[in-house]
Amino acid sequence: MKLEKGQKLLFIGDSITDCERSKPDGEGLFGALGKGYVSYVDGLLQSVYPELGIRVVNKGISGNTVRNLHDRWEEDVIKQNPDWLVVMIGINDVWRQYDAPFIKDWHVYIDEYENTLRKLVKETRTNVKSLVLMTPFFIEDNEQDRMRQTMDKYGEVVKLIAKENDCLLIDTQAAFHVVLKELYSGALAWDRVHPTPAGHMILTRAFLKEIGFDWNK
Amino acid sequence: MKLEKGQKLLFIGDSITDCERSKPDGEGLFGALGKGYVSYVDGLLQSVYPELGIRVVNKGISGNTVRNLHDRWEEDVIKQNPDWLVVMIGINDVWRQYDAPFIKDWHVYIDEYENTLRKLVKETRTNVKSLVLMTPFFIEDNEQDRMRQTMDKYGEVVKLIAKENDCLLIDTQAAFHVVLKELYSGALAWDRVHPTPAGHMILTRAFLKEIGFDWNK
Amino acid sequence: MKLEKGQKLLFIGDSITDCERSKPDGEGLFGALGKGYVSYVDGLLQSVYPELGIRVVNKGISGNTVRNLHDRWEEDVIKQNPDWLVVMIGINDVWRQYDAPFIKDWHVYIDEYENTLRKLVKETRTNVKSLVLMTPFFIEDNEQDRMRQTMDKYGEVVKLIAKENDCLLIDTQAAFHVVLKELYSGALAWDRVHPTPAGHMILTRAFLKEIGFDWNK
Amino acid sequence: MKLEKGQKLLFIGDSITDCERSKPDGEGLFGALGKGYVSYVDGLLQSVYPELGIRVVNKGISGNTVRNLHDRWEEDVIKQNPDWLVVMIGINDVWRQYDAPFIKDWHVYIDEYENTLRKLVKETRTNVKSLVLMTPFFIEDNEQDRMRQTMDKYGEVVKLIAKENDCLLIDTQAAFHVVLKELYSGALAWDRVHPTPAGHMILTRAFLKEIGFDWNK
Amino acid sequence: MKLEKGQKLLFIGDSITDCERSKPDGEGLFGALGKGYVSYVDGLLQSVYPELGIRVVNKGISGNTVRNLHDRWEEDVIKQNPDWLVVMIGINDVWRQYDAPFIKDWHVYIDEYENTLRKLVKETRTNVKSLVLMTPFFIEDNEQDRMRQTMDKYGEVVKLIAKENDCLLIDTQAAFHVVLKELYSGALAWDRVHPTPAGHMILTRAFLKEIGFDWNK
Amino acid sequence: MKLEKGQKLLFIGDSITDCERSKPDGEGLFGALGKGYVSYVDGLLQSVYPELGIRVVNKGISGNTVRNLHDRWEEDVIKQNPDWLVVMIGINDVWRQYDAPFIKDWHVYIDEYENTLRKLVKETRTNVKSLVLMTPFFIEDNEQDRMRQTMDKYGEVVKLIAKENDCLLIDTQAAFHVVLKELYSGALAWDRVHPTPAGHMILTRAFLKEIGFDWNK
Amino acid sequence: MKLEKGQKLLFIGDSITDCERSKPDGEGLFGALGKGYVSYVDGLLQSVYPELGIRVVNKGISGNTVRNLHDRWEEDVIKQNPDWLVVMIGINDVWRQYDAPFIKDWHVYIDEYENTLRKLVKETRTNVKSLVLMTPFFIEDNEQDRMRQTMDKYGEVVKLIAKENDCLLIDTQAAFHVVLKELYSGALAWDRVHPTPAGHMILTRAFLKEIGFDWNK
Amino acid sequence: MKLEKGQKLLFIGDSITDCERSKPDGEGLFGALGKGYVSYVDGLLQSVYPELGIRVVNKGISGNTVRNLHDRWEEDVIKQNPDWLVVMIGINDVWRQYDAPFIKDWHVYIDEYENTLRKLVKETRTNVKSLVLMTPFFIEDNEQDRMRQTMDKYGEVVKLIAKENDCLLIDTQAAFHVVLKELYSGALAWDRVHPTPAGHMILTRAFLKEIGFDWNK
Repeated sequence: MKLEKGQKLLFIGDSITDCERSKPDGEGLFGALGKGYVSYVDGLLQSVYPELGIRVVNKGISGNTVRNLHDRWEEDVIKQNPDWLVVMIGINDVWRQYDAPFIKDWHVYIDEYENTLRKLVKETRTNVKSLVLMTPFFIEDNEQDRMRQTMDKYGEVVKLIAKENDCLLIDTQAAFHVVLKELYSGALAWDRVHPTPAGHMILTRAFLKEIGFDWNK
Repeated sequence: MKLEKGQKLLFIGDSITDCERSKPDGEGLFGALGKGYVSYVDGLLQSVYPELGIRVVNKGISGNTVRNLHDRWEEDVIKQNPDWLVVMIGINDVWRQYDAPFIKDWHVYIDEYENTLRKLVKETRTNVKSLVLMTPFFIEDNEQDRMRQTMDKYGEVVKLIAKENDCLLIDTQAAFHVVLKELYSGALAWDRVHPTPAGHMILTRAFLKEIGFDWNK
Repeated sequence: MKLEKGQKLLFIGDSITDCERSKPDGEGLFGALGKGYVSYVDGLLQSVYPELGIRVVNKGISGNTVRNLHDRWEEDVIKQNPDWLVVMIGINDVWRQYDAPFIKDWHVYIDEYENTLRKLVKETRTNVKSLVLMTPFFIEDNEQDRMRQTMDKYGEVVKLIAKENDCLLIDTQAAFHVVLKELYSGALAWDRVHPTPAGHMILTRAFLKEIGFDWNK
Repeated sequence: MKLEKGQKLLFIGDSITDCERSKPDGEGLFGALGKGYVSYVDGLLQSVYPELGIRVVNKGISGNTVRNLHDRWEEDVIKQNPDWLVVMIGINDVWRQYDAPFIKDWHVYIDEYENTLRKLVKETRTNVKSLVLMTPFFIEDNEQDRMRQTMDKYGEVVKLIAKENDCLLIDTQAAFHVVLKELYSGALAWDRVHPTPAGHMILTRAFLKEIGFDWNK
Repeated sequence: MKLEKGQKLLFIGDSITDCERSKPDGEGLFGALGKGYVSYVDGLLQSVYPELGIRVVNKGISGNTVRNLHDRWEEDVIKQNPDWLVVMIGINDVWRQYDAPFIKDWHVYIDEYENTLRKLVKETRTNVKSLVLMTPFFIEDNEQDRMRQTMDKYGEVVKLIAKENDCLLIDTQAAFHVVLKELYSGALAWDRVHPTPAGHMILTRAFLKEIGFDWNK
Repeated sequence: MKLEKGQKLLFIGDSITDCERSKPDGEGLFGALGKGYVSYVDGLLQSVYPELGIRVVNKGISGNTVRNLHDRWEEDVIKQNPDWLVVMIGINDVWRQYDAPFIKDWHVYIDEYENTLRKLVKETRTNVKSLVLMTPFFIEDNEQDRMRQTMDKYGEVVKLIAKENDCLLIDTQAAFHVVLKELYSGALAWDRVHPTPAGHMILTRAFLKEIGFDWNK
Repeated sequence: MKLEKGQKLLFIGDSITDCERSKPDGEGLFGALGKGYVSYVDGLLQSVYPELGIRVVNKGISGNTVRNLHDRWEEDVIKQNPDWLVVMIGINDVWRQYDAPFIKDWHVYIDEYENTLRKLVKETRTNVKSLVLMTPFFIEDNEQDRMRQTMDKYGEVVKLIAKENDCLLIDTQAAFHVVLKELYSGALAWDRVHPTPAGHMILTRAFLKEIGFDWNK
Repeated sequence: MKLEKGQKLLFIGDSITDCERSKPDGEGLFGALGKGYVSYVDGLLQSVYPELGIRVVNKGISGNTVRNLHDRWEEDVIKQNPDWLVVMIGINDVWRQYDAPFIKDWHVYIDEYENTLRKLVKETRTNVKSLVLMTPFFIEDNEQDRMRQTMDKYGEVVKLIAKENDCLLIDTQAAFHVVLKELYSGALAWDRVHPTPAGHMILTRAFLKEIGFDWNK
C-alpha cells in the first residue's frame, strides 16, 4: 500500500469526480464526498485501512475542462496542500467539440489541453508526495468512433505528461475496455460518459490497484 | 466464485438494505438499487464479473422487522423466484425496544424473531439455490452496552438458523468489530445503525468474501 | 397534401412521441401535445394549412414497448377513432436488451415485436383512412454497433409490416443518417435516443414530406 | 441560402424571443435556446444545413422594450460579435400603453421607439454581415382595433429603418394575417401576443423564407 | 335590498366565479370564497349589511361549461338548498369553439347550451326564492369580432330564459361595455376573459345594483 | 369626486396596506397592488371612473412602524412624487407593546409616534395636492381593552395631526365600530388586526366616501 | 403521582392538542407527539419519571368539535385501550359561532355539546382507570366578551360532566386567568386560541399539577 | 428566583441551543426561540413569572465550536448587552475528533478550548450580572466510552472556569446521568447528542433549578 499514515489524498476533476460532493469543502460527513468513485475509494480505504487515517478530499466540479482547473488550481490544489493529488480531466474538453460543435469558445483543443495540463503538473509535482494522472475516457468500444479517437489522443497526452513527471498513471479507458467486451456501453453509462455504479467501481478498482490496495488484507 | 451465470440475487431487509432503492421494483437503471451495500455489491459484480450476468434485486424496506418480512414474503421473495436469497433483518426488532421502550406493540422480542425467521427460512430453503443470512448489527464496540447485548443475542439466533438450514452466514457484527478497533462508532454511523459509505463497504466486502468474489480477477 | 379537411391525426409511441404531453388527453391548449416532433408537426400543419382543421392527438407514453401499446390499444387508438394513425415503437424493446441486459423480463425480442405489431396493424388497418409506420431508430452512425444492428432489424420488421398492410412508411433511421454525416451523434441526442430540437425537426420533416406537406404553399 | 458556413446568428428581443432560454448564455445544450421560434429556427438549420455549422444565440429577455435593448446592447450584441443580427422589439413598447395606461413611465412612445431603434441599427449595421428587422405584431385581425393600429405604426417604423439601413425585413404581422383568415386569434395566442407552437412556426417560416432556407434541400 | 335576513346566496359558474375558492366547500374562512367577484360581493354584503347575516357560497369550477353544471347540479345546487341562486355560465362553451376549433367534442353549441340551461333553470326555479342569471361576456368592444358575436348570441339565450322563468338578469356584457369606452380590453383582462380586480368590481357592482344594495346605507 | 384626471394616488403603511403587493414597484399588472383595500380602491376607481385615469401605487410593507416609514420616506414617497398621499400607520407601533412586551426596542411609544408622524406630514404637505391620514385601528369593540385603549390614543394623535395640517382624515376605528355591533371581531379579522375581505371593504368604503366617490355614477 | 408504572395516557382534542402530531399514529419518535402541551407533558414525564414508563399518545385533530370526536371515538379512543384518557374539546364548537356566524351547520350549540360529551364520557368511564376533562378556553381576560361568555358556559358543562362521572377536571380558563393579569392576551396567543410556548406551558403545568407530578422529585 | 424584573437572558451555544431559532434575531414571536430547551425555559418563565418580564434571546448556531463563539462574541454577546449570559459549548469541539477523525482542522483540542473559553468568560464576566456555564454532554452512560471520556474532560474545564470566575454551573452530564439509569441513550437522543423533547426538558429543569425557579409558585 503506497499511502502512508495520515496522508491527505485530493481528487480534482469534472462531473465524474464531482458527483454531488459538498461545496465548497468536498470533505466531511453525510455524503460530502459525493456518490461516485471518490466516495467508493474513501469507503474502501476507511473500511480496509482504517489505521492509516487517510483524509480524502473531493474537488471535482461538473462541466470543468483543464481551463477551469487552471483557474482554480491555486485555491483548490495548492492551498489544500495535499500529500497525494489525483487529476482526471479532459472529457469536457473533448465532448463539447462533438455535442456543441459550433460553439468553438467552449472547445479546449489538444494543444491548449497539453500545455495547460503540463504546466499544472510541472508546477505542482514537487509540492506533493505523489501525483496520479487518470486519463479521460469515453465508454464506447468502437475505436473508430470520432469522439473516441479524439479522447484517445487526449489520453496519450496524459500518458506522456505522466511519464515526463514521474506520476502514477491510471489508464481508465483500458479499464473500461475489459468490461466493454461483455457489456454494451449503455449498461455502463446512459450517455457513454457518466458511469453507473458499476462504471464507478471500474474507476475505483483501477485506482486502488495502482496504489497497492489489498482487498484481502 | 459461487455465483453462476445468469443467476438472480435478491436482497431483502430493512433501511440498511433499502437505501432509497426504487419502489416497488428494486432493480433497473438510475440508482434503482439504492445507495448502500446492495448497490456496491452490484457495482462490483458487474464490473469484475460482467460475463456472469448476475441480476441483482433489492427488496429492502426502511423500518422493517421480521414481522414485516413475513407479511410480504410471498410477494417480494417467493414470486420473485430468485436463485440466491440474502436476508438481513432484526435491527429494528431490537432498536424499538430501546428507543421507543414504552410502545411495546412495536417490539419484536427474540422468541417471535426466532420463530418467524426460522419459518421463513425453512419454507424457502429448497426454493433457492443458495440462501445467505446476514446477522443484524449494532455499530458499538462496548459489548456490555445493553442494546449491543440484545443485538448479539439476535445474531446468535441467525447463526443457529443458518446452521440448521445449510445457509451461508455473514457475521456483520464481526466485520464491523475489526474496524471499530480503529475508528470510533460515530465515524461509521451517525446513529450507530445507518452506515457511512465506509460502513456499507464493510458489509459489501463481508458478503463478497463469503461468496468467493476475487478482487484481483 | 394527403391530409383532408377535418381529419384526426393520432400519434402513438414511446418517450420520443410523449415529450411531456398532457395526460390522459394528449390534445388541447398550453403544450398539451408535448415538446417534440408531434408538437412541431401540429405547429406546421396549423400554420401552413389552417384551413384543413387537422386535429392532432398525442398518445405517446415514455418507456413504452410494443407490449405496452398492445395493452392500451383499445383505449388509446380504437376508442379515439382517428382518421390517420401514426405508430413509432420499438426503441425501448431493443434498448433494454442493451442497458439492462440481465433483466430479461423487460426485453421484447424480435419475434414478439413482429407478431404484436403485425396483429395491431392488421386489426386496425381498415378502421383508419391511413396508417403510417415510423421505424424505430438509434442515433449512431456506426452500422456495426451492436445496438444499431438490432435496431436496424426491428426497422426491417416495420418496413415489412408496412408493405404487407399498405401503410405509409417513414424510415427515420435513414433520415438521421443524412445528418449524421455532418454532426456527431452527441449533437443530436445526449444518449443517442432522445433527440434535441434538431433531431425532432428531422422526424418532423421526414413525416411531413411523406404526407405531401408543402412548405412553400 | 444566405447564411454562410460558420456564421453566428444572434436573436435579440422580448418574451417572444426569450421563451425560457438559458440565462445569461442563451446558447448550448438542453433547451438553452428556449422553446420558441429561435429554437425552431435552430432545429431546422441544424437538421437541414448541418454542414453550415451555424451558431445560434438567443438574447431575448421577457418584458423588454427598445429602451431595455438600448441598455444592454453593448453587452448582448456588440460584445457577442455576431455575423447576423436579428431584432424583434416593440410589442411591450405598445402593449403597456394599453394594459397599464396610467403608468406612463412604462410606455415607450413612437418617437422614442423610432429614435432608439434607428440609433442602434445605424451604429451596428457595419459591424455585422446581415441585419434582420422583424416587425412587432399583434395577433388580432381587426385592423381598426386600437392596439393593432398602434402596433401597425410601430411596424411602419421598423420597415422604414430597415429600408434606410439595408436590412432584411420580416413583416410578421403580414405572416400572421394569412393564418388569421382561417383561425381566430385565440387559437394562435392566449393573449394575442404569446404564440402557440403554431404561432412560433409562423415566425419561423417567415424568417427562414427570407433568408433562403430550402425545406426540400 | 332584496336579500332578506339569514338567506343563503349561492353562486355557480366557471373560472370567473371560481377564482381559487376552497374545494369542495366554497365557503368559510381564509379566502374560501376565492379572489373574484364572489368574494367582493360577500365583502360588501358583510360590511354594509352585517345585520342580514347573508351566507355566501361559491360553487364555481374553472373550465366548466353548462354541460358540467348539468352533471353536478344535484350535488352543488339542489343539495345545497340555497335561497338565492346565481348562475353565470357559457364562456367556455363559446371559447373552446375559437381557441380549440378542431376539438369539436369540447364545444357546446348554442342549441345544447340553451336546452341545458333552460332545463336546469326550470327544474330549480321553484326551489329557490330568487334566481339570478348573469350573461356570459367577452371583454372586447368590437361587436363584429367573431367570438364576441357568438358570445352575444349566448347572452341572448340567457336573457330569454331569464324572462321565461322570472329570473333577475345581469347583463354583464353591457356592464363591461361602459368601461370599454374608456379602457382598452387588455387593461381589464389579460386574455379578454379573466378580469383584473377592476373587471371583477364591474361584475360586483352590476350584481349588487340589481339586488338593491345601497352603498350609502 | 375629489380625484382629478391623471392623478397619482399613493398609499403607504404596514401589512394592512401591503397585502402581498409586488415589490419594489407596488403597481402594475397581475395583482401588483396586493389583495387588500388598496386593490379594492383601485378596482372601484378604474371600473367606475375609468375616464379619470387614476394611477394607484401601493407602498405598504408588512410589519412597518412609523419609524420604518421615516427611514424610507425619501425613496417611497418623495421620489414617487404623488398627487395624493394616503398614510395609515401605527398598528405595529402599538401591537408590539402587547404581544412582545419585553422587547422594548421594538416598541414605538406615543411621543416618538407623534413626533415622527408630524414631521413627515409637515415636510410633505406642500408637495402633494391632498394628504389623507387614516387612523390605526384595533378590531375589538371593548373600549376598555388595554390594547384598544392605546390604539385609540394613537388614533387621537392622527386626528390632531390631520387637523393641524389640513389633511383628510379617515377614522377607521369608527368605521369598524359600526360593523362590530353586528359581527364579532373574529368574523372580521382572525387576530383582530388583519381584516377579512369584509374588513378590507370597510376600509375601502371609508376611504372612498371621504373622497367623494359615487357608487351610483 | 397518580400515574402508575406502564400506563398508557391518551390525549384527544382539537388543534391545541394536535400541534402537527404524526398521523395516524400520534406516538413514536421524531416529534410524533407534536409541538404543543402533549409533547411538553411527555417530555416532563419521561425526564422526571422515566422509571414509570408512561406511554403517551396524541389523538388531537385540528378543527375538531365534539361532533368529530363522536365520529372517531371508537377508532381513536376505544380501540386504543388507554389507561388514562384526557379530553379537551369545545373551542371550535364555540368559535365557529363567532367567526363564521352565518354557516350554522358548522356550529355545535351547547345542548348538542353537552349531550355528546356526556354520552362519550359515560360510555367510556368504566373502560379507563382515569378520565381527565380539560375545559375549553378563550385567552381573553374580559369576562363580558361575547365569545368568552359562551366559552365559559361550555366550560361549565365540562365541569358538570366531570363531577357526574368522577373525572379529574382541569380548569384551563382559570389557569390562563392568572397569567392574563400580567400579560396581554396577544402575548399568549396570536388569535386568542392557539397558544405560544408559554401558553402551552400553562396547560402543561395545569395538567401535571392535577395528576400529582413533582417537579422537585 | 434569581432572575430580576426586566432582565435580559441570553443563551449562546451550538445546535442544542439553536434548534431552528430565527436568524439573526433569535427573539420575538412565532417560534423565534427555536424548539429546544431555550424555548422551554422561556415558556416556563413567561407562564410562571410573567410579572418579571424576562426577555429571552437565543444566539445558538448549529455546528459551532468555541472557536466560532470567539469569532462572533462581540456581535452576539457584547453588543446584545445581556444581564444574564448562558453558555453551553464544546460538543462539536469533541465530536469532530470522533466522527471526522482525519480532518484535524475541524478539531478543537482541549487546550484551545480551555484557553478560548476562559478568555471569553474573563472578558465578559464583569459586563453581566450573572454568567451561567453549562457543561457539554454526551448522552452515553458508559463512562469508559472514548468520546464520553473526552467530553467529561471538557466538562471538567467548564467546571474549573466557572469556579475561577464566579459563574453558576450546570452539570448537564450529571442531569442526563439520572435518567440514563432508566432509559437507554437512544430514547433520549437519536445520535446521543441531539435530545428529544424529554432530553430538552432535562436541560430545562437543570437550568431552572439552578436559578431558583419555583414550579409550585
